[in-house]
Amino acid sequence: MDIGPHKLSMSSTRLETMGDGIFSVAMTVLVIELRLPDVKGNSLSDFMQALYGSRHQLFCYFISFIILGIMWYGHRMVFEYVSKTNRYFIFLGILFYMVICLVPFSTRFLAANTLRWYGIMMYALNLSLCNLALYWQWQYGIRRPSLRTRELPDEVKTEAQKLFLISPVMYGVAIAFSFFVPLVSIFIFFMTPVLYLLPNKIDKYLP
Amino acid sequence: MDIGPHKLSMSSTRLETMGDGIFSVAMTVLVIELRLPDVKGNSLSDFMQALYGSRHQLFCYFISFIILGIMWYGHRMVFEYVSKTNRYFIFLGILFYMVICLVPFSTRFLAANTLRWYGIMMYALNLSLCNLALYWQWQYGIRRPSLRTRELPDEVKTEAQKLFLISPVMYGVAIAFSFFVPLVSIFIFFMTPVLYLLPNKIDKYLP
Amino acid sequence: MDIGPHKLSMSSTRLETMGDGIFSVAMTVLVIELRLPDVKGNSLSDFMQALYGSRHQLFCYFISFIILGIMWYGHRMVFEYVSKTNRYFIFLGILFYMVICLVPFSTRFLAANTLRWYGIMMYALNLSLCNLALYWQWQYGIRRPSLRTRELPDEVKTEAQKLFLISPVMYGVAIAFSFFVPLVSIFIFFMTPVLYLLPNKIDKYLP
Amino acid sequence: MDIGPHKLSMSSTRLETMGDGIFSVAMTVLVIELRLPDVKGNSLSDFMQALYGSRHQLFCYFISFIILGIMWYGHRMVFEYVSKTNRYFIFLGILFYMVICLVPFSTRFLAANTLRWYGIMMYALNLSLCNLALYWQWQYGIRRPSLRTRELPDEVKTEAQKLFLISPVMYGVAIAFSFFVPLVSIFIFFMTPVLYLLPNKIDKYLP
Repeated sequence: MDIGPHKLSMSSTRLETMGDGIFSVAMTVLVIELRLPDVKGNSLSDFMQALYGSRHQLFCYFISFIILGIMWYGHRMVFEYVSKTNRYFIFLGILFYMVICLVPFSTRFLAANTLRWYGIMMYALNLSLCNLALYWQWQYGIRRPSLRTRELPDEVKTEAQKLFLISPVMYGVAIAFSFFVPLVSIFIFFMTPVLYLLPNKIDKYLP
Repeated sequence: MDIGPHKLSMSSTRLETMGDGIFSVAMTVLVIELRLPDVKGNSLSDFMQALYGSRHQLFCYFISFIILGIMWYGHRMVFEYVSKTNRYFIFLGILFYMVICLVPFSTRFLAANTLRWYGIMMYALNLSLCNLALYWQWQYGIRRPSLRTRELPDEVKTEAQKLFLISPVMYGVAIAFSFFVPLVSIFIFFMTPVLYLLPNKIDKYLP
Repeated sequence: MDIGPHKLSMSSTRLETMGDGIFSVAMTVLVIELRLPDVKGNSLSDFMQALYGSRHQLFCYFISFIILGIMWYGHRMVFEYVSKTNRYFIFLGILFYMVICLVPFSTRFLAANTLRWYGIMMYALNLSLCNLALYWQWQYGIRRPSLRTRELPDEVKTEAQKLFLISPVMYGVAIAFSFFVPLVSIFIFFMTPVLYLLPNKIDKYLP
Repeated sequence: MDIGPHKLSMSSTRLETMGDGIFSVAMTVLVIELRLPDVKGNSLSDFMQALYGSRHQLFCYFISFIILGIMWYGHRMVFEYVSKTNRYFIFLGILFYMVICLVPFSTRFLAANTLRWYGIMMYALNLSLCNLALYWQWQYGIRRPSLRTRELPDEVKTEAQKLFLISPVMYGVAIAFSFFVPLVSIFIFFMTPVLYLLPNKIDKYLP
């Protein structure tokens, strides 16, 4: 039988819509899980003390939100080059969404165990798995001409590879430090997103 | 009166968007409901023990997420062939979403009663109903030429039927085992998604 | 100044996407709020007893899900006729979403106070306000030729009006009964969605 | 190397879809967090007393929902003029979504501390930051001809600026009053959305 006329279009639009949904819920869930600071009195120092008691939670919220934002950006960029899907590409996508959905969980775990090695390790592992899953999906997509619908300049390819792999390396270092000076790990969690805000070589391909 | 010029287009796009929303929330909700492992001390064995205490929850999370992912894929494929809707097709869709939304609930119930027959039965029933509701919607859609906008090869039809009905059969077996060797049921829950990851005859119609 | 070339297109697509998001979250939230049945032992009667204890919750979940589904359908149909928006149309839409978002809340309240007049009244009022808000938005939209992009047959107009106003009337009756025979009110909550599943005069305009 | 043919389109559609998801979840979350009024008996006065006990919560819910609706409208209008994105525009968007996601949190905080200066301050600050973040994104977008795809009349520009800055000013006044007559602050929270419902000079550009 000739399959030609029965080939499905399998545009990536639906996978993108689902991804946008996953990210928007995951980001909002970060906040549902914030406990209210419990202010004991009416003075400024009471309020500052309550805020101080919530500092771990608030810090973890901000970091995780920004990291999810950066990952959303990466995820969005993948679909500038890949705009058709097949079953395996979709399953790699769902794997990526599975680890993304865990971020609010490991954020809560870090907020409850901020300076403990296991809090740091779970968070660092979770974020690294997000990057690696997206990297896998990206590699799968760009190597199949039937899925990729736009030429991929070598410069973009190399830079993307670098950007995908920076954070697993950083988070590996964070895990290593967590056993000795956990504050350094926290500082790495803070600095890693900053790296992604710096200009990079892909920017010039954008409008 | 001539109805012709007043015929509505009733594209399926909105139903798909709502479905993507439902799936993305249901998937994320699986995680909201994970309780934090409660680590008693700072040693590796304390951590492993806490993880061990959360093993039912984590297992159920992973299985349910992957199953929801596979169902999303099936749901997405329906709309490659059916791209117009009418009132009954939409109501069948809402029925499907209703049982999908129950998945986080029966997952929680299974996590709390992992080796009990009733935990296994509710979970297996819920997942079977998801498949059967989608199968019903699919049958309704492909039989009406006014809704189906693309020819459906016989091979796809037969294979789809098989894929829709595999899991209700598997889950029926899981229910039967739950009264005697509940571990076998859990193993079936683990193996069923794997069956859907194997290559199938529809793959060759994808890009 | 000539405004002509600066006229904005203001397609209704974004409002529809937001609505689909609101509905999908509201539907899923119904389930988050279900408490797990607490099964005391391993026998069938233990399980049935636990289910029996959850009967109010489960009943309210099913009814509310189906009602939200029917309202989504109505909301979707509005945009078959109206496909441009202005500020007031959008604000009427947000008013509608506001009362839709309250449905999980009044569902929970009804589940906790199933046979009490105030549980029934809050639920009935909430659902009536949903219908009336959507009816207001519909009336606003179809009367403005700059928003409506398709001719509206008189038959559809009359039938839509009837469908919009059936449930406020039914729910008014439910409130009246709640003071004397609350079970009748519950029966009305059960029957009202069924009315919307019967064939109606708009069906023939669909594919 | 000539970058021309490799320029990415970077349509703003995905950012809008994510935003619609964020808003719809944030709005629904407002309700998840409403506690059920606890009615002690069956009389009207018992019910009114329970409602009275929930008055802060319900008031905060309504105000926050309407304010989020107005912000969604502003956010939607930005994309009538800007329909391409680059990395910085997207990051400004994520910053905006970050403060939007905090609204359910500061709403809860206000509901728990309605007449306290810190409850009012957190809420007023959060809402002001939302407006300022969106204003920043708007300014960034309209100044770059590569992102803006439609001419921006001077009248719209001036009016938009006014609308963006009204509420930070109002909320600044609310903070000032919170130390002396907190009820005035609450009244300002109530009046500010009303200002946005009045006709404005942009309306005539809409259909």
